[in-house]
Amino acid sequence: MPISTSKHHIIAAFQGEAGAYSEQAAIEFFGKGICTLPCVTFEDIFSSIKENRATHGMLPIENSLTGSIHQNYDLLLKHNLNIIGEYHLRVSHCLLALPGVKLEEIRRVYSHPQALAQCEANLNRLGVEKVVDLDTAGSARLIRDGKDPQAAALASAHAGEVYGLHILVREMEDNLANFTRFLVLCQENPVQYQPEGQTYKTTIVFSVPNVPGSLFKAMSVFALRDINLTKIESRPISGKPWEYLFYIDFIGHIEDKNCARALEHLGEIAEFMRVLGSYPRQKQE
Amino acid sequence: MPISTSKHHIIAAFQGEAGAYSEQAAIEFFGKGICTLPCVTFEDIFSSIKENRATHGMLPIENSLTGSIHQNYDLLLKHNLNIIGEYHLRVSHCLLALPGVKLEEIRRVYSHPQALAQCEANLNRLGVEKVVDLDTAGSARLIRDGKDPQAAALASAHAGEVYGLHILVREMEDNLANFTRFLVLCQENPVQYQPEGQTYKTTIVFSVPNVPGSLFKAMSVFALRDINLTKIESRPISGKPWEYLFYIDFIGHIEDKNCARALEHLGEIAEFMRVLGSYPRQKQE
Repeated sequence: MPISTSKHHIIAAFQGEAGAYSEQAAIEFFGKGICTLPCVTFEDIFSSIKENRATHGMLPIENSLTGSIHQNYDLLLKHNLNIIGEYHLRVSHCLLALPGVKLEEIRRVYSHPQALAQCEANLNRLGVEKVVDLDTAGSARLIRDGKDPQAAALASAHAGEVYGLHILVREMEDNLANFTRFLVLCQENPVQYQPEGQTYKTTIVFSVPNVPGSLFKAMSVFALRDINLTKIESRPISGKPWEYLFYIDFIGHIEDKNCARALEHLGEIAEFMRVLGSYPRQKQE
Repeated sequence: MPISTSKHHIIAAFQGEAGAYSEQAAIEFFGKGICTLPCVTFEDIFSSIKENRATHGMLPIENSLTGSIHQNYDLLLKHNLNIIGEYHLRVSHCLLALPGVKLEEIRRVYSHPQALAQCEANLNRLGVEKVVDLDTAGSARLIRDGKDPQAAALASAHAGEVYGLHILVREMEDNLANFTRFLVLCQENPVQYQPEGQTYKTTIVFSVPNVPGSLFKAMSVFALRDINLTKIESRPISGKPWEYLFYIDFIGHIEDKNCARALEHLGEIAEFMRVLGSYPRQKQE
């Protein structure tokens, strides 16, 4: 738990319903005992923080199989919140059924289309019918409420706990290297820079003049100072066809001298620049 | 019409149904008189060309407001077709109704959610109800078949022609800078390099070793030769969390000496590289 705030004061907003992977990520990041606030849309995460209904937000930004969730980059720019942490959640789908039901009884499996697709080979081996639902946690709730002993849901172990279901099979996904990276959002920035013993990551967004070589020059401010970029993402600029905003993650904290100089240098090149946050890097083994 | 093939032999596959913006793009690119082949999915465009049911494909790759269509980058890599052209379609939504119907009679407007969103301010001014449909061309067909004089569709002028509807209002979109860039696909590459009087664009995909500064080094092969990049896009590599494939568009043809040397240089840095096509650049004013 990298945050010093008492967990009793934490209300983490997430998109989805109780039992969603995003809620699981919030609980794993902050620790058990926090409050969580389900939101209908990703934008609701931002407004619930701004309106003080939540203290933090858990925003999925990228999945290792399907790529970035691009509209969430747009929301980071639109709403002025700070990124204070990151969390890599291992997305592992469990086959969940009513207590007492056996695997060989299952005929139908409900889940979100992406979860069904990610478990396709294993589901085919079981010879079950795939039924599309709006989300993974919702399909777990459906199994609890439906009382159909031939039906199962693909959802998180956390959803199984929330809805009192039994785990028939763990790790149903065909590709085990399935991670979602979450950004932890907050209105203010409580992350104290502690140069010793902690690696930081910083996320910035900027645009460059529409002239040849300008992105290369922007990237050189990091390369010339041996600052490691871990991610680059581009998004369109509304009203300027084929011009882009660039979102970059780099290793380092804005209070680190080397990084501060790089950003100062980037300021000479960029037309627009904003720091979205410096936060402890989560090492992934 | 930058292609030398006789247009009578052209069968252009596109995703959507008759009257779709993609079909309009194919007709504007190749000229009237070509055949078009509607496809259910983007992947069907690729298979229809491979199975010789179509000679060409019209693949939307990016919209100036909503950004890249990322799964189509994945399909470019998966299927080994050549990019032989590009086309920028101005996406302009018309309000289409049955012949004889007047604007003040309209109560309901049907279209794809994105088209409805792009025309929101203008629709609100008209005080009409917005009804979500699967696609723009489908909503035009619905108006033709429904015979409801109080209903209209938001779709292309081309859809209006296809379904015999009347254009009540042109340019319903709130932001006029709405373009979709299409890539023209083909099994072989008939684009002859003509260094005089023609600018080319090349699209490549590559990956770099997961070490600091490797993307910067890859980009330097272009910057050091004054080759202008117009687009960079990253996509996840399945099975290697947080490693990326990069798709780059640059100005120049692979047979141009400067570009050939840059790609040779990139070959020293990249772990994987493939040229997806060199094609005439479409100038956009």
